[in-house]
Amino acid sequence: MKNVLLLAIGDELLSGIRRDANCAGAAWLFHNADWKVEEIEIIPDEQNIIVEKLNSWIGKVDLIITSGGLGPTHDDRTRYAIAELLQCGLEVDNAAYDIISARYTDPIKHWIEYSRPMQGLMPVAARSVHNPTGSALGMFFERDGTKVYCFPGVPTEYKSMVQQEFGNMLAPSGGWTSIAIVGIAESALKEHFGQIIDNKDLHISILPSFGIVEFVIRGEPEAVKQAEERARNILPGDCLPHGILNLPEAILYEAERANKKIAFAESCTGGLIGAAMTEIPGASKVFLGSCVTYDNHSKQALLGVNEDILKDNGAVSPECAAAMAEGACGIYRADYAVSVTGIAGPDGGTESKPVGLVWFGVSGGRETRTFPRTLNGNRIMIRERAKTIALETMWRELKEAY
Amino acid sequence: MKNVLLLAIGDELLSGIRRDANCAGAAWLFHNADWKVEEIEIIPDEQNIIVEKLNSWIGKVDLIITSGGLGPTHDDRTRYAIAELLQCGLEVDNAAYDIISARYTDPIKHWIEYSRPMQGLMPVAARSVHNPTGSALGMFFERDGTKVYCFPGVPTEYKSMVQQEFGNMLAPSGGWTSIAIVGIAESALKEHFGQIIDNKDLHISILPSFGIVEFVIRGEPEAVKQAEERARNILPGDCLPHGILNLPEAILYEAERANKKIAFAESCTGGLIGAAMTEIPGASKVFLGSCVTYDNHSKQALLGVNEDILKDNGAVSPECAAAMAEGACGIYRADYAVSVTGIAGPDGGTESKPVGLVWFGVSGGRETRTFPRTLNGNRIMIRERAKTIALETMWRELKEAY
Repeated sequence: MKNVLLLAIGDELLSGIRRDANCAGAAWLFHNADWKVEEIEIIPDEQNIIVEKLNSWIGKVDLIITSGGLGPTHDDRTRYAIAELLQCGLEVDNAAYDIISARYTDPIKHWIEYSRPMQGLMPVAARSVHNPTGSALGMFFERDGTKVYCFPGVPTEYKSMVQQEFGNMLAPSGGWTSIAIVGIAESALKEHFGQIIDNKDLHISILPSFGIVEFVIRGEPEAVKQAEERARNILPGDCLPHGILNLPEAILYEAERANKKIAFAESCTGGLIGAAMTEIPGASKVFLGSCVTYDNHSKQALLGVNEDILKDNGAVSPECAAAMAEGACGIYRADYAVSVTGIAGPDGGTESKPVGLVWFGVSGGRETRTFPRTLNGNRIMIRERAKTIALETMWRELKEAY
Repeated sequence: MKNVLLLAIGDELLSGIRRDANCAGAAWLFHNADWKVEEIEIIPDEQNIIVEKLNSWIGKVDLIITSGGLGPTHDDRTRYAIAELLQCGLEVDNAAYDIISARYTDPIKHWIEYSRPMQGLMPVAARSVHNPTGSALGMFFERDGTKVYCFPGVPTEYKSMVQQEFGNMLAPSGGWTSIAIVGIAESALKEHFGQIIDNKDLHISILPSFGIVEFVIRGEPEAVKQAEERARNILPGDCLPHGILNLPEAILYEAERANKKIAFAESCTGGLIGAAMTEIPGASKVFLGSCVTYDNHSKQALLGVNEDILKDNGAVSPECAAAMAEGACGIYRADYAVSVTGIAGPDGGTESKPVGLVWFGVSGGRETRTFPRTLNGNRIMIRERAKTIALETMWRELKEAY
């Protein structure tokens, strides 16, 4: 088993202004590819500490990946630390930086070129590593059997460089699968899957988040395959298809199969549902749009909700949810539409309509249906949960359509 | 300045299944109370590594706080590590555990008592620390000038024990501010703020993310105040108001001041703008909605974009952006509307309209204006950047309105 040390460099991580996501994300990838993650360490932008820390791990691990300290500003010390460690000078790697710079046009190109003397500067005993998503070059060197990669701390850049350098290697070994299960609580899942969880030959992780639970199975490939089949047989209606771990992709899959177009009408979720659907490349094949109507007038003007409904029943009511879903179906010319209207808080709750009350509507294939849910948590959690329930509702509707 | 090492213990943190929030949260508190957070380190549930790590820091820092490894299961090794380090035996601290147990009733009390031999077990050379929110006792000892506290890893318990032990000491010291600056690249900021950055009495952090840069200043309260004033005078048009660090809040602030209502029309951002606006409690005071129109028909049906525009110029065009903004203004009865239409990729690009090309429209106060941007990065980054530019555009429009 190979081992890796993940090192984040940055004062902002030690002052709590930012939280590390890079090392934690890489840890997940390396762990799933059967590496041992020895430690995750977060150290300040101080040259001597970077040198000391690297020296203390070089020779002890197969791989070190550092995150951060490669930008153009005064507190970016990583390149100087590496030069000190390798006892060499620094030179701008113009050839490598040219490739980066060629991607940009003015006015940004001006600043990319302005940063060349800093962001292109490389210890001469290291080689530069291409950055496919940003402008700071990465670095690589090897010493005493340890490969050291230094990547920028910007999460998208770090992530893309981990993929670029280790992507092939990080494919989880065959004995790994993950099933996404919707609408089942973590504790209920443990009961349903008790025998699978108790199997000592398997390593199980249960990762819940806002109405969707990932059930991760690791072990011998054949045992994993059997366990996945068994799990899917226990909850046939609640598992997303093999290889799909989120609802928008599952919706895209089902809508394409059924050749149906979809739309949403959102109030308290404010665009979260549309944003989630359109995160997937190719969403345009089935997704027509999502109408965010936050005030009463726009519910009337855009979705045709009757004024009397808003007056008599209010915006958070089954009548309004139904009218919103029907309106979205009509105006978008969608086969199916799901609507969400509720009170995300912290203000706006009443005794009869408390914070967390959300009405959902579904229109399309069958008659229009509505149902309420009372959701726990703060504003962020209520909105996330409402989003997931709306997506789950659309997914189940599309499965029926096929 | 006192210094602290924050240590998280747990295999689940090194496999990426869970991310550390305890150390990062404590770092924020200690940093704001003028402590130096030396490092944050995450290590596995292995007794010898815990001992080794503590030994390497004892005598070098004023304080060590560990998180995790105090539960009732076989992989909770912290208490044994401390006993090894202090070369002492372990005994159940019944007096301390009785206080914990008294808080519970059956059926949970049954499990609390069942766990007494593990969770109550203390190295005899340490003293136990009360847990106000959970059942695992904490530990404290002092050695070579270093105070060591061991708290459980459950976030609510860790947090409550940090408050219990250090609450009085952790009141922020005041010499801290953060300015959010929009539309200025990190490297350009360095040039503008060169003299502030070079001031040796200040500690500066520059935190960029998708078109918004946070400029954090720390130091003596009076010096920080002067530096903030100076920064705001250098870039008077680009700094968000004092205390506001994101565009949706700045928009809410300006729209309320100007007594204006706003709406958006989204294509490639798919709802991200509406979701960002409605993340803020109270957004309904100024935000009417956002119309996500992903296909051509819905741009006509919901926003009244002329069919000829779509035929002749396409959806990604200044004409379409203008019509979308005007349409949103009209249908929502908004004072201002901003529209976004572009190609987020990875597919859909052509030579004349490449992936990353995004047209923006602004309608309302002044005449309708449009402008294009060519954005770098993958789908996620293009969408995030387009969102930020749309929000920035709305913010600048509202500032003019006042």
